[in-house]
Amino acid sequence: MKRVLVALPTLNENQKEKLRSACPGCEISFINEKEITPSNIDGVEIIIGSVPPAMLHSPESLEFLQVGSSGADAYVREGVLKPGTVLTTCTGAYSQTVAEQAITATMMMLKKMHLYRDAQNRHEWTDLGTVGSLDGAVVLVMGLGEIGKYYSRLAKALGAYVIGVKRRASDKPDCVDEMYLTDEFDEVCPRADVIVSFLPGSAATTHFYTAERFRAMKSSCVFVNYGRGVAVAADVLEEALRNGEIAAAAVDVFETEPLPADSPLWDLENLVITPHSSGFYHLPATLERVVDICAKNLSAYLNGGELMNVVDFKTGYKK
Amino acid sequence: MKRVLVALPTLNENQKEKLRSACPGCEISFINEKEITPSNIDGVEIIIGSVPPAMLHSPESLEFLQVGSSGADAYVREGVLKPGTVLTTCTGAYSQTVAEQAITATMMMLKKMHLYRDAQNRHEWTDLGTVGSLDGAVVLVMGLGEIGKYYSRLAKALGAYVIGVKRRASDKPDCVDEMYLTDEFDEVCPRADVIVSFLPGSAATTHFYTAERFRAMKSSCVFVNYGRGVAVAADVLEEALRNGEIAAAAVDVFETEPLPADSPLWDLENLVITPHSSGFYHLPATLERVVDICAKNLSAYLNGGELMNVVDFKTGYKK
Repeated sequence: MKRVLVALPTLNENQKEKLRSACPGCEISFINEKEITPSNIDGVEIIIGSVPPAMLHSPESLEFLQVGSSGADAYVREGVLKPGTVLTTCTGAYSQTVAEQAITATMMMLKKMHLYRDAQNRHEWTDLGTVGSLDGAVVLVMGLGEIGKYYSRLAKALGAYVIGVKRRASDKPDCVDEMYLTDEFDEVCPRADVIVSFLPGSAATTHFYTAERFRAMKSSCVFVNYGRGVAVAADVLEEALRNGEIAAAAVDVFETEPLPADSPLWDLENLVITPHSSGFYHLPATLERVVDICAKNLSAYLNGGELMNVVDFKTGYKK
Repeated sequence: MKRVLVALPTLNENQKEKLRSACPGCEISFINEKEITPSNIDGVEIIIGSVPPAMLHSPESLEFLQVGSSGADAYVREGVLKPGTVLTTCTGAYSQTVAEQAITATMMMLKKMHLYRDAQNRHEWTDLGTVGSLDGAVVLVMGLGEIGKYYSRLAKALGAYVIGVKRRASDKPDCVDEMYLTDEFDEVCPRADVIVSFLPGSAATTHFYTAERFRAMKSSCVFVNYGRGVAVAADVLEEALRNGEIAAAAVDVFETEPLPADSPLWDLENLVITPHSSGFYHLPATLERVVDICAKNLSAYLNGGELMNVVDFKTGYKK
């Protein structure tokens, strides 16, 4: 009889029942993810939820960790899980909430709504001139996982011409007009009116957006980072905005989170900062999808079925 | 030989040529709309552009006024034009720019991006909790002219269920899921997650959104006014927001414009104010469309062809 610990946000009875039905004969316990302590993990074979990585020191009994998040970069680091532990994510569950906030931020920048909000706070009735549009814009989407594809569909629905850039060769999905490999980024980068990054955190993506790459972008380009903060160093982004290498940016993720209160980024007029808020369970639909994925994978793991969203420890990406 | 005055923003040679070709044999002159003086109007038979209404006192010679704007309510008032003057608008040219800013504002409110911008300005990394989505939301679009239809298409592309409300019975256009007449507003109002108003200014639309109607809305409703300011009195909107009758509002138009610097509206956290900036020529595509409409109507007027966007002086609406 395996012991299963579910550490997600508070679930309703229907959601709990979905998980219970997925592991008949197991001993299952539920705890709010915010209340988890090291003793909860002790002797558990299966964890469903995003236990703080610092609480995990290669626990002996743990066989299978299904995290509640879409990324798992914090769990593939050495010493967090013992070799052989199966690690799966909830990739896909967060696509809607992240992509929707990212496209809202994109449109906000194009329409100067952040500057109009600032003007409102100064009681100023001031026309801020020319605005942009997604209609006809070339939008470069970095990372074509579930979130990148969701964003691409929204952008296309609003009239954008979407160029997808991804790590591995595959057939071009319908949601993009053109597709390139990450190695080809420098060739397509100067064409983009908007660059939206959903790159996950990994050695390969760390500081991907260098000062040189910002210089290669259109000076009218809007840069949006809703992937992971390591993809761009704070000082590089700051300089790109201060020097007018790009027109504006909207960023939800930072190398250091929370962003320190004395960071010079806060006061950049053309940078819209959100506190890594696009994910989580801010849309009610998200938790429902998380529970569905967890229940399916729990059942598959116990019955030797095929798991979804298995993480490759070498790359930190989905296998 | 008729005299034609073109008073639009500064046109390029290609745009001027389009208008010249539309009125061969006429004496045509161009002036930037901001530099027009009463002497420019004197003795002119045709004006293309939005001459300030205060400059018009039923000018004797004027036969045809093609305004550059989408609305013409300021020109149908008594004493502005002499009876019999033909009045046409550029309805349609502004649909994209207005609808795009309106949907950006809608999404911004649903995603709390205005509050995140305020938090940013305070250097605060604070999670603001649950957000909404257009996906699955019931969006009530008041006014199904070109702008209302454009907005409806965008909202549907983003997953909304769109209810259109219009003045006159007609076949339901594909861009809406249900359609009602203005008289039926009170029946559908409580169903709406978002109410977007594109009502023009007229006697019938003045103070349409009464305190009673705000009370009938969902307390979670987002109200967006991108039509004309007369549709809602400032104090009624203020009370609706302060009392929590609705969750938030985004307003581009006011009864008094510019909004006075001491208006209590400026400081309402859940109200996003823009300075009637959605229209004008802020999108480059708009001026191109305006010139096309003006050239077609100029040619039609001179050759007895069918005019587009003719204003009915009795209603202030398109005939």
